[in-house]
Amino acid sequence: MQLLKDRIVKDGKVRAGNVLKVDSFLNHQMDIQLFGEIGKEFKRRFAECDVTKILTIEASGIGIACITAQYFDVPVVFAKKNQTKNIAGDVYTGKVESFTHGRTYDIIVAKEFIKPEDRILIIDDFLANGSALLGLSKLVKDAGATLIGAGIVIEKGFQEGGSIVRGQGVRVESLAIIDSMNEDTGIVFRNE
Amino acid sequence: MQLLKDRIVKDGKVRAGNVLKVDSFLNHQMDIQLFGEIGKEFKRRFAECDVTKILTIEASGIGIACITAQYFDVPVVFAKKNQTKNIAGDVYTGKVESFTHGRTYDIIVAKEFIKPEDRILIIDDFLANGSALLGLSKLVKDAGATLIGAGIVIEKGFQEGGSIVRGQGVRVESLAIIDSMNEDTGIVFRNE
Repeated sequence: MQLLKDRIVKDGKVRAGNVLKVDSFLNHQMDIQLFGEIGKEFKRRFAECDVTKILTIEASGIGIACITAQYFDVPVVFAKKNQTKNIAGDVYTGKVESFTHGRTYDIIVAKEFIKPEDRILIIDDFLANGSALLGLSKLVKDAGATLIGAGIVIEKGFQEGGSIVRGQGVRVESLAIIDSMNEDTGIVFRNE
Repeated sequence: MQLLKDRIVKDGKVRAGNVLKVDSFLNHQMDIQLFGEIGKEFKRRFAECDVTKILTIEASGIGIACITAQYFDVPVVFAKKNQTKNIAGDVYTGKVESFTHGRTYDIIVAKEFIKPEDRILIIDDFLANGSALLGLSKLVKDAGATLIGAGIVIEKGFQEGGSIVRGQGVRVESLAIIDSMNEDTGIVFRNE
């Protein structure tokens, strides 16, 4: 998606440790017009899939998932990272290792919100080590629902997540895949 | 907002300890069509305020804030609850006591995303003890920006948050104010 790649080049900041800061438009401040274009592109790619629900994970996936959901006319469910007293009893659970935060946490979704008849599209902002996506896929599998695929805004193609998840037969559509990035030489996108 | 009140009566569940579960449409599963109507109503109420940016707090405020932002044509910034290695240096900070989670945490916003010339509308799903709203208001004040007001989906009118925040001169627009609720007798809304 050229609009997105151009924006990453313009406003993204490469930092040591393979960190790409896109917090001016994607995951701290959020450019809602850009999100609209992202949502339309996900709809174009998954148009014929009869998606019934979008699944994402808090926090930075939520905004993109909600804007995208308007084009599919379906509800969004977000997996929560910590059990709260407002969620009782019947939940699907998984574990996610966060690249950004450097720790492992539990994720949960109430069972009532993923049903076997659901056709789930996962939406998230980043795909790096694949841990979040694998954790979300497990929730879908545990529920006996159909996983249509995953729509990712930025994939770090030099990390193993994309290969692992695609290797499990999951359709992954990433709007920008970064093959390499460097503070000095900048960002190289995969040609698609 | 009658559509919202009807939905709360239909799908909300009152639990012991003044807990209102609205996780089937508001803060775990999210009804995006309803969010659209909520966004339009916030736009109607704050139409003439020249809002330049919407501020919310992770996680459950993000979806409503993003959908609402489409009607104002402005970006969203969400306050983060924990410092991550992706946010370095210059941040505004506050403290929030969570009613739901029963603990106090730090909130931060990068200084570059709230400027003195900004006219900020705060959007959140709940107003109860007012702690989140006071914390967000402090961030706006620290930035020297103008706080236009706060758009809240559900206010627990029997808790003190609304009075405290309005007592500080902040305009608070709540789409449904609950004056009392009880597992047996149900929910009583304030007449407006």
